[in-house]
Amino acid sequence: MTSTTVLCGGVGAARFLRGLLDVVPATSVTAVVNTADDTVLHGLAISPDLDTITYTLAGATDDERGWGLAGETWRAMAALDRYTRVRPGGSLAASTWFNLGDTDLATHLYRTARLAEGATLTDVTAEIVRAWGLGLTMLPITDARFRTMVTLASGPDAGTEISFQDYFVRLRHDVPVRAVRFDHDDARPTPAALDAIDAASVVVIAPSNPIVSIGPLRALPGVDEHLGARRDSVVAVSPIVGGSALKGPADRMLVELGVESTVVGVARLYAPIAGTLVVDSVDAPYAAAVEAEGLRCIVTPTIMSQPGVAAALARTCLDAAG
Amino acid sequence: MTSTTVLCGGVGAARFLRGLLDVVPATSVTAVVNTADDTVLHGLAISPDLDTITYTLAGATDDERGWGLAGETWRAMAALDRYTRVRPGGSLAASTWFNLGDTDLATHLYRTARLAEGATLTDVTAEIVRAWGLGLTMLPITDARFRTMVTLASGPDAGTEISFQDYFVRLRHDVPVRAVRFDHDDARPTPAALDAIDAASVVVIAPSNPIVSIGPLRALPGVDEHLGARRDSVVAVSPIVGGSALKGPADRMLVELGVESTVVGVARLYAPIAGTLVVDSVDAPYAAAVEAEGLRCIVTPTIMSQPGVAAALARTCLDAAG
Repeated sequence: MTSTTVLCGGVGAARFLRGLLDVVPATSVTAVVNTADDTVLHGLAISPDLDTITYTLAGATDDERGWGLAGETWRAMAALDRYTRVRPGGSLAASTWFNLGDTDLATHLYRTARLAEGATLTDVTAEIVRAWGLGLTMLPITDARFRTMVTLASGPDAGTEISFQDYFVRLRHDVPVRAVRFDHDDARPTPAALDAIDAASVVVIAPSNPIVSIGPLRALPGVDEHLGARRDSVVAVSPIVGGSALKGPADRMLVELGVESTVVGVARLYAPIAGTLVVDSVDAPYAAAVEAEGLRCIVTPTIMSQPGVAAALARTCLDAAG
Repeated sequence: MTSTTVLCGGVGAARFLRGLLDVVPATSVTAVVNTADDTVLHGLAISPDLDTITYTLAGATDDERGWGLAGETWRAMAALDRYTRVRPGGSLAASTWFNLGDTDLATHLYRTARLAEGATLTDVTAEIVRAWGLGLTMLPITDARFRTMVTLASGPDAGTEISFQDYFVRLRHDVPVRAVRFDHDDARPTPAALDAIDAASVVVIAPSNPIVSIGPLRALPGVDEHLGARRDSVVAVSPIVGGSALKGPADRMLVELGVESTVVGVARLYAPIAGTLVVDSVDAPYAAAVEAEGLRCIVTPTIMSQPGVAAALARTCLDAAG
């Protein structure tokens, strides 16, 4: 049976996976997920990308708001304001901008308690996936602490390095950045994640931010080498469509870090690890330029908000590698 | 100005303090509170007695239900069921019997985050008290980990030692116990708590469970000695009225541990540390027997569910010591 491993960030990857699960059995799919956005808030272990994928695949997300769980309430965080007002600043200040819903809290409580018991993030993730009745395998790229740090490029805080969530949520990724660094000391990809990269029939790089979603996976020792060794059956989907990111700051970030915000820029970033780049129909004029970077270029609709597109895109990726 | 220090467990102490604050300025009152019921659930630091007192004095409790916050919801715990069903047992099993409300969770999240930052429980408690706008000083008896353990006396688990919350909440204190032990390694009372015992004009032992609420305070090194050194101005209020506890298992527990479940039994326990025992009017016939134990006996209404009784009882305690 064909098996597929998908390298994932958050929302874009979740939508791609939803399409993939329409065309192949869930048991044949492994998602290897970015954890460099993970953070600790109010003592709770938060894994935004893992949870976005889980909630999306479970059909539990609030699609109108674009994040969080459907029917969510916010009473715990509202009550926390009483305390953070008395003692502003410090790690608790986050409560004013990082809103955790009451039912979402359960996931963080469970993860925190299990990690405190000595479980690995890989263990806990498997339990959470099972609890939501999902059939795929979901693996954090690492069980170690591992954090994306962003250096601001301008304004009063130019040159300051802040955490990813500080940049992404508090500052609404609305500020230019000068550098991105992955703070990972001796973090290693888990053996299970590397095995998933090695053993799958096809590896897909989901349409996630190449810098801060796929970048952290690649920053860990060995990941690029394992992908490079099987480059011909690695298919990347461009998250840049017509020069823009469909969601998030990928387009601005590429430019700020000196990469062209086009599918050609994406092709250059992925050339060492992927044999094929799938680009949206609007980017057909760039196909030759992508191929000049040494990747096969496949042109197809990739905007997954349209019904059926995600499944067709997944099918295209599998065929491209096969 | 007269200053008062009250040794406290949970509900009975909270009601007594509410009465005391009707008759003296809050700034003259220090509550020294049991923390041996404290536990960690889902990674969160829970301090039941501290919170019961805070919520009661803030007028925020649900008086009909008898515990927790008014207008509480339970969405986070309901959502946690999804996970604990997948993995029953372990520390997470508690979610099936230890219900944390959504707004109550904020207190535990704040406490947990502050402790993780290196704050002491004394620091955090002061912040929580300030956040609720309370004017009194509230001090945990110790900043160290300190746990009440209960040995079951009968049934299939006879001889098994379990945690206090396991006994009190999960088993609804509806099982006989053989022994109570305080697991406190090298826990020490805080200097602030001992100072509050030494320096107050009056020390009141609130009508709390003598074994599992006041007992833990007394088990810590030095507390009995500091109380004994000023015994004449220490006034205890009996939690046993007409042979029964108004709330909780104090009456059964006294008998199971070989102490008479009467005001005389209470007098024997407190004789080394209190010069006066205040007993309810229904126990007037025991006054002479109490005095035979070496304590002055004051007879007065003590059932604080009646309006005005708590304030009058507090006044009586202050006068008894003065």
